[in-house]
Amino acid sequence: MPARPRVIRALLFDVFGTVVDWRGSIIRECRALGRRKRLGVDWDAFADAWRAGYQPAMARVRSGELPWMNIDQLHRTILDGLLAKFGIDSLTEDEIDHLNRAWHRLDPWPDARRGLALLKRRCVIATLSNGNVALLVNMAKHGRLPWDAVLSAELFRHYKPDPQAYLGAAAMLGFEPGEVMMVAAHKDDLRAAQACGLAAAFVRRPREKGPKVKLDVTPDQDFDFNARDFVDLARRMAA
Amino acid sequence: MPARPRVIRALLFDVFGTVVDWRGSIIRECRALGRRKRLGVDWDAFADAWRAGYQPAMARVRSGELPWMNIDQLHRTILDGLLAKFGIDSLTEDEIDHLNRAWHRLDPWPDARRGLALLKRRCVIATLSNGNVALLVNMAKHGRLPWDAVLSAELFRHYKPDPQAYLGAAAMLGFEPGEVMMVAAHKDDLRAAQACGLAAAFVRRPREKGPKVKLDVTPDQDFDFNARDFVDLARRMAA
Repeated sequence: MPARPRVIRALLFDVFGTVVDWRGSIIRECRALGRRKRLGVDWDAFADAWRAGYQPAMARVRSGELPWMNIDQLHRTILDGLLAKFGIDSLTEDEIDHLNRAWHRLDPWPDARRGLALLKRRCVIATLSNGNVALLVNMAKHGRLPWDAVLSAELFRHYKPDPQAYLGAAAMLGFEPGEVMMVAAHKDDLRAAQACGLAAAFVRRPREKGPKVKLDVTPDQDFDFNARDFVDLARRMAA
Repeated sequence: MPARPRVIRALLFDVFGTVVDWRGSIIRECRALGRRKRLGVDWDAFADAWRAGYQPAMARVRSGELPWMNIDQLHRTILDGLLAKFGIDSLTEDEIDHLNRAWHRLDPWPDARRGLALLKRRCVIATLSNGNVALLVNMAKHGRLPWDAVLSAELFRHYKPDPQAYLGAAAMLGFEPGEVMMVAAHKDDLRAAQACGLAAAFVRRPREKGPKVKLDVTPDQDFDFNARDFVDLARRMAA
């Protein structure tokens, strides 16, 4: 663990995969739609393909190939391609739009709400997601997540891991980077935050990509905390 | 009342004076400081002068005379002038900074927390204040205000009543202007929101400027709602 003691005033949370179970939620919504519309589709593969389009889409924005587009727009672009690829042509525009907004209705991991409530007593708790503000606000209402602030890459027009997102979020909350800790299930997100001077807490989410994908969830002594979940993180921060 | 029925999906709240009692809170903090530091100052006049500097300071930003400065910075600029004017020269930099952040510790009006909890069941509830994000987040923690989102003129770099603030907030929440209602104790704020296509709810705060100043709190049929307080607004919206 880093030697320098820190006073952490704010926690910034990655959301997709760290706070919410995107894969389980998307598959559940897709299956329900498939039953209603009598579609024979491998929805696990569909959900994985939708998510797989996400990083390349952001990379096209980051490179300037695409103008700024928020995640709702990027999700829709990917979705339109997948509907064609999977041969799904019986959905109305309203049904496609509702499906695209399944990302606004992702369910939290079982510990998330309780862990956030505990952490909120100690620090400012805010999102720092590549998801857009509307998506994150709707998701918080859906999952009753008690954020103090909903911050998004959208506010800085730079997707993580661009440094502008981490530094912009710390500044917007009125804190120095060293007073802020990024919380994520993704080590690359944490390392980018650390490169900006933020502290880092790794939270294990071994099932993020489903039961068949083995993820690297080993603790790493480069991080300030390594926790099983948010309740465990609250306990470790109080220790 | 406007004839067109509206489905209101989000409420945007003015904050200073509408949600929190800025004058009572600032006077109380100033008096406590005055006792500690043995300062003989008319703190009512001091608080009123501090607030009176606020609109002219924003006007200087709006005109381009000053670069973008957030409200913490504008409050500090005004405060530095007032300390000189009132002959207060015994405060340390830490004490001045703490005093400037009294605006982060304003107390809600007695109905605010309960009324917001009721309104939150029905709509997205968000701030739309000229106060900066850090100020609003700290204030929400201080007063336990259950915002779904903390939006600020700071995000749009346009102070209310510039249209960019109202339109930017509606867009950021993913709604059309007509799906959003501004809630304020200030009729000019509401009229500016209406000019952008938002609905408007007037809430009476007759004591905002203290017991001696008589404010215009008469209902106005141009507004969609006229309410005594937030609990009354929730009741009227449910009717």
